[in-house]
Amino acid sequence: MVGDTVQLLERHACCGGEVSFLSHASRELGLDAKVGVFLPRQALEGASVPTIYVLAGLTCTQETFLIKANAVRYAAKHGIALIAPDTSPRGANIAGEDDSYDIGTGAGYYVDATAQPWSEHYRMASYVGKELPALMEETFPFIPERCGIMGHSMGGMGALSFALSAPDKWKTVSAFAPLSSPSRTDWGEKAANLYFGGNQSLWQQYDPCLLLKAGKHHPGTLLVDQGLSDNFLEKLQPNLLQEAARSAGQALTLRQHEGFDHSYWFVQSFIEDHINHHAAELRA
Amino acid sequence: MVGDTVQLLERHACCGGEVSFLSHASRELGLDAKVGVFLPRQALEGASVPTIYVLAGLTCTQETFLIKANAVRYAAKHGIALIAPDTSPRGANIAGEDDSYDIGTGAGYYVDATAQPWSEHYRMASYVGKELPALMEETFPFIPERCGIMGHSMGGMGALSFALSAPDKWKTVSAFAPLSSPSRTDWGEKAANLYFGGNQSLWQQYDPCLLLKAGKHHPGTLLVDQGLSDNFLEKLQPNLLQEAARSAGQALTLRQHEGFDHSYWFVQSFIEDHINHHAAELRA
Repeated sequence: MVGDTVQLLERHACCGGEVSFLSHASRELGLDAKVGVFLPRQALEGASVPTIYVLAGLTCTQETFLIKANAVRYAAKHGIALIAPDTSPRGANIAGEDDSYDIGTGAGYYVDATAQPWSEHYRMASYVGKELPALMEETFPFIPERCGIMGHSMGGMGALSFALSAPDKWKTVSAFAPLSSPSRTDWGEKAANLYFGGNQSLWQQYDPCLLLKAGKHHPGTLLVDQGLSDNFLEKLQPNLLQEAARSAGQALTLRQHEGFDHSYWFVQSFIEDHINHHAAELRA
Repeated sequence: MVGDTVQLLERHACCGGEVSFLSHASRELGLDAKVGVFLPRQALEGASVPTIYVLAGLTCTQETFLIKANAVRYAAKHGIALIAPDTSPRGANIAGEDDSYDIGTGAGYYVDATAQPWSEHYRMASYVGKELPALMEETFPFIPERCGIMGHSMGGMGALSFALSAPDKWKTVSAFAPLSSPSRTDWGEKAANLYFGGNQSLWQQYDPCLLLKAGKHHPGTLLVDQGLSDNFLEKLQPNLLQEAARSAGQALTLRQHEGFDHSYWFVQSFIEDHINHHAAELRA
């Protein structure tokens, strides 16, 4: 299934299926991009399967979610593929790109930058939202009409943002400790100063709370888990998401957990519920 | 539970219990040592629980097995604690210690070195076999009579070695892709050249196949999983373990799996069976 367009970097039998890491030349990013893929047994046998895109947070790579979230066994159980994109372009060679954890490398925020020098490569919204699904669906036996999306932290924001913007594509959505309203955080302000050339209003295209306020709606239920001992709680602001969903009439299941922090030890504690949430719809 | 003797480095709620990473001054190693611990809910509530020691392979740390093996959820299910030691002393400052992946840092082989300069710090057999269990049992509500041990690769060798040498302590044992007979590999020869000053015969105290040949016996069944696409198969030599167990009348369940390699993607695919194997006895 992997050929000229997509190069296989590594492949490992896992849970009856196969975890692989791939590289491809991305048109949107103007660079080579890596992606992690779990194919369940059914896909290896040629059956068409649903997919869940899993988006990681700041500083992470295409490996993080697959290694740390313990999602593979549950995806295997339901016969669902997992697609794990990277969190930013790599090697754009922009001054300052590698200087801080919250901008540049590892911090693409799943947006399309509009300001130079970022706008040439930092196009994660178009990459994850369009280019990558099309490529994956050409390469593997995936059912384009059965896609879910989930993420953690910055990736949770990305998952909510993609699903609210394109509910026809992303049939199911969930998030762990998502950045609910990046425009109201110093992370988001810094990102907009660089990626949007200071035009903070461009967050309206991506900020989950602003999307809800603008009338975007997802027909499914947003499943969100949040730890109450999360160090980043003041930036994540699950209360803003709850208010925005209530005002917009958006179905949201927000579960807040005493004692859990921001780590993947938290994510793995609830991943089974998330995969089940997606499978209920994608496998219906 | 953690105090003067053991310092808490980090603690994360996970799967109803708690994953923590600790540091303590090790008498055997003559250095500070780190250890990962999963405490199930029952232990947090003050009940005494069984433990499984999980030993990682070359290049790994006290984090590797806990992060990558996906064992926590099954330990949680059975109310069993996990203890993840490091794979060598750290910071012994021996010339060449950090030069190769298969000797020195990350490559303690769970043996006690006898030759200078290694013998002062490289005492992983005494550390993991005696000092650490005593410390853990002083610190946490663990049942000293209900200990299991498992490991991966070099750690699989360690698990078999500890269990055959001290079956009264280690009631249950299992291994993923263990180094079955280190004395018959270039890894083992190199380790003996340095740690044992060239005295290859000291492997008789540790080499699982040589222990079986010398009459050591474990009353339980050794559960061993091995991938048949493992790059290290020629060094691991599961056939030698099978022959030694047969000759010695040692119960062994050796499962060989087509297509699986040496990675934790393999380990996580069969970890549930291993935890169940230990739980059946430790929770009986």
